[in-house]
Amino acid sequence: MATIVTAISATSVPAQTDVFSAQESDPNVIGWMQGFPPPDDKLITQPDSNYFSFPKLRWSVCHLREFLPTEVIRRGVGAPVPLSYPTPSEFADLALEIDALTFMPIDGTEEITWEESLYANYTDGMIVMHRGEVVYERYFGCLEEDGKHAIMSMTKSITGLLAEILLAEGVLDDTRPVREVVPEIGDSAVASSTVREVMDMTTGVQYSENYSDPNAEIWDYSRAASPLPKPADYEGPDSYWEYFQQVEPEGNHGDAFHYKTINSDMLGWIISRVTGKSVTDLASERLWRPMGAEMDAHQTVDAKGVPFAGGGVTAGLRDLARLGTLMLNEGEIHGKRLFPAEVAQKISAGGDRSKFAGFPTIPNGSYTSQWWIFHNEHGAYAARGAHGQTIYVDPTAEMVLVRVASYPRAQNGFIDPTSLPAYQAVADHLMAR
Amino acid sequence: MATIVTAISATSVPAQTDVFSAQESDPNVIGWMQGFPPPDDKLITQPDSNYFSFPKLRWSVCHLREFLPTEVIRRGVGAPVPLSYPTPSEFADLALEIDALTFMPIDGTEEITWEESLYANYTDGMIVMHRGEVVYERYFGCLEEDGKHAIMSMTKSITGLLAEILLAEGVLDDTRPVREVVPEIGDSAVASSTVREVMDMTTGVQYSENYSDPNAEIWDYSRAASPLPKPADYEGPDSYWEYFQQVEPEGNHGDAFHYKTINSDMLGWIISRVTGKSVTDLASERLWRPMGAEMDAHQTVDAKGVPFAGGGVTAGLRDLARLGTLMLNEGEIHGKRLFPAEVAQKISAGGDRSKFAGFPTIPNGSYTSQWWIFHNEHGAYAARGAHGQTIYVDPTAEMVLVRVASYPRAQNGFIDPTSLPAYQAVADHLMAR
Repeated sequence: MATIVTAISATSVPAQTDVFSAQESDPNVIGWMQGFPPPDDKLITQPDSNYFSFPKLRWSVCHLREFLPTEVIRRGVGAPVPLSYPTPSEFADLALEIDALTFMPIDGTEEITWEESLYANYTDGMIVMHRGEVVYERYFGCLEEDGKHAIMSMTKSITGLLAEILLAEGVLDDTRPVREVVPEIGDSAVASSTVREVMDMTTGVQYSENYSDPNAEIWDYSRAASPLPKPADYEGPDSYWEYFQQVEPEGNHGDAFHYKTINSDMLGWIISRVTGKSVTDLASERLWRPMGAEMDAHQTVDAKGVPFAGGGVTAGLRDLARLGTLMLNEGEIHGKRLFPAEVAQKISAGGDRSKFAGFPTIPNGSYTSQWWIFHNEHGAYAARGAHGQTIYVDPTAEMVLVRVASYPRAQNGFIDPTSLPAYQAVADHLMAR
Repeated sequence: MATIVTAISATSVPAQTDVFSAQESDPNVIGWMQGFPPPDDKLITQPDSNYFSFPKLRWSVCHLREFLPTEVIRRGVGAPVPLSYPTPSEFADLALEIDALTFMPIDGTEEITWEESLYANYTDGMIVMHRGEVVYERYFGCLEEDGKHAIMSMTKSITGLLAEILLAEGVLDDTRPVREVVPEIGDSAVASSTVREVMDMTTGVQYSENYSDPNAEIWDYSRAASPLPKPADYEGPDSYWEYFQQVEPEGNHGDAFHYKTINSDMLGWIISRVTGKSVTDLASERLWRPMGAEMDAHQTVDAKGVPFAGGGVTAGLRDLARLGTLMLNEGEIHGKRLFPAEVAQKISAGGDRSKFAGFPTIPNGSYTSQWWIFHNEHGAYAARGAHGQTIYVDPTAEMVLVRVASYPRAQNGFIDPTSLPAYQAVADHLMAR
């Protein structure tokens, strides 16, 4: 059942232990899967181990395709468009400066350094771009510059971005009810919501992602979406899309933001229906190819080959920085326009703050089109995924920051206190450059 | 159980039907997996359909990663080194010339054209290089220039090439018994064979790949190697490597060539043991990166993450042409030497022909280091995989040809009659250029 749990959410699977520090739990230090064959106690296998629990998580975030079937997001076959870097000595100086920055964690009592925050957050990869140039880049744990990392719920933001592009092009109409776009949805509770409500996660649907509740719908969803053969006596829905056809109502559409991953996968279905393309092919065509990505990305699939639009993507750190650059530059990268500026402007403007609550580290926030908007002084917004994934866009500082991580717990609420102030500190530092 | 059957072998899964022509069975014509969702009768899924039987095979050869866990063979993040092409008008002229070439199939009664042979063989991709230049390139069925195709047992030839490179470097000694290199092999029948016997498939081991025999060892091997969760009552070996530990003897080591895939996976284990690297990482380091590959390749894995060294690779057509070029040029590509010339020379010189029998379309052949040597006038040799895969190297004509295909039956014996004379015809034509 690890399929979904892996990648989703704001709530969490309890971590096996939080005792190991980032350094102690480094997968190279533990030695997971080292040796031919590895010793039994260093094996991480799909059938018989919870490969997405800490500390195994720290290895598995770079190896998801070795457990699950995946579909490619193709970069094409040409040369990638390289990112810009300062001279090596400038780059080295910047790294020293940034590593030494200090800040006060949220609700903290003493300042910590930027570099300490990387370890506090079990960072696997951190890249910072300022005014189009890479000013900081480091890899830890399982990640290398040519490796890829599970981006978990940041996948949602790619799905949402694709939807906004289709809206701007008039291919999709966000005022339409879902049942008109996808008639197969039948009498499901989601049928009467609008595409916009799906995009903003304000649908009134019965769905809990509370992993500690064995009756939470997330478990049914996991079973439905598993690409592994179903048990002989299984009678539930098979695939993401069959699951939606039997979702029950809860509350009213449009009333409030509820973080429910089924919205993202429903949006994936909507996108595929109006374009005739899988979300992987669309992401390739609209993003990965034209942005000059240096690596393919990939996305886990269900038993019917449908990509997990709510959490299945694995990608390279620099390609995520290209994606963030596209957002910061409102649709342009390397002098090429990939989508209208209004797409990024609409997302960064944010959603209805009155409908957003329950995230203490984002007190003034909103959620729209599968992106998190901080509504802070810098107008920052982000893609966010469990265990510490983020693409953080700060328009005021002209900064894009991408962090991938394998924090022991899934909830960003634990990770934000040593992250968000760090991002502010580096933004302030870069603005003074 | 499709895991292994998919990719192996000289023997075969009976094809569902041979009635459909290449044009009729084109997956785009049938419409496999088209639509969101596809109609039930157009679904190809892992749990409940034999996705590697014809005509589904014609779709699945390009989509193996969507059914099975895989490990990447990284190309790295830099720019690929492009292949050389003639001018577009020269290229178009060459295509017309080559398409119109005629030849007599083996045991045939009338000549057919080169182009007809492509359809007769259910070709998905064909590229021909002559004196370092691409002179012919076409894609069919599920394959596109930026797509990838299962190469099945051609995987063995990559494994064999890596082993020969290690021999040339003195890292591996092919006179050593397997038990000295991999002590875990225990009392298995393969323990007393030499590395060379494993490389040349002359081990005396009980192992049948006759798919029509339900008691053939291939079925046990498939169960052992499946990456899917094992049934609760399963007590057999789990993984390729555990399987080898209980192989029984049959005949004598060194007596004769027997095409048994377990040798290739045993060779994979040997390679990993002496290098401390997976075959995927080694193929990346020694081949994919330095040859300027334009796409990552990937390789299916067992439940313990071990890549299928006997058949699991999926790769791009042009990258396979780069591999063939490396062989033709005896270790050099794009002016760079990747391995000593003796590696390719040893392979192309061939193995002991007196030990080779049972392949009517290769009457004078031999098999060495996981490559097939024709011992024909041109000194041609090949990597070969089920359902029509080949990298065909013709040193006399200075030609490399790669064909990937999805012929309804697995056995190349059915495919060679309209293939090998076609390769000779195009070689003769190019030599007269």
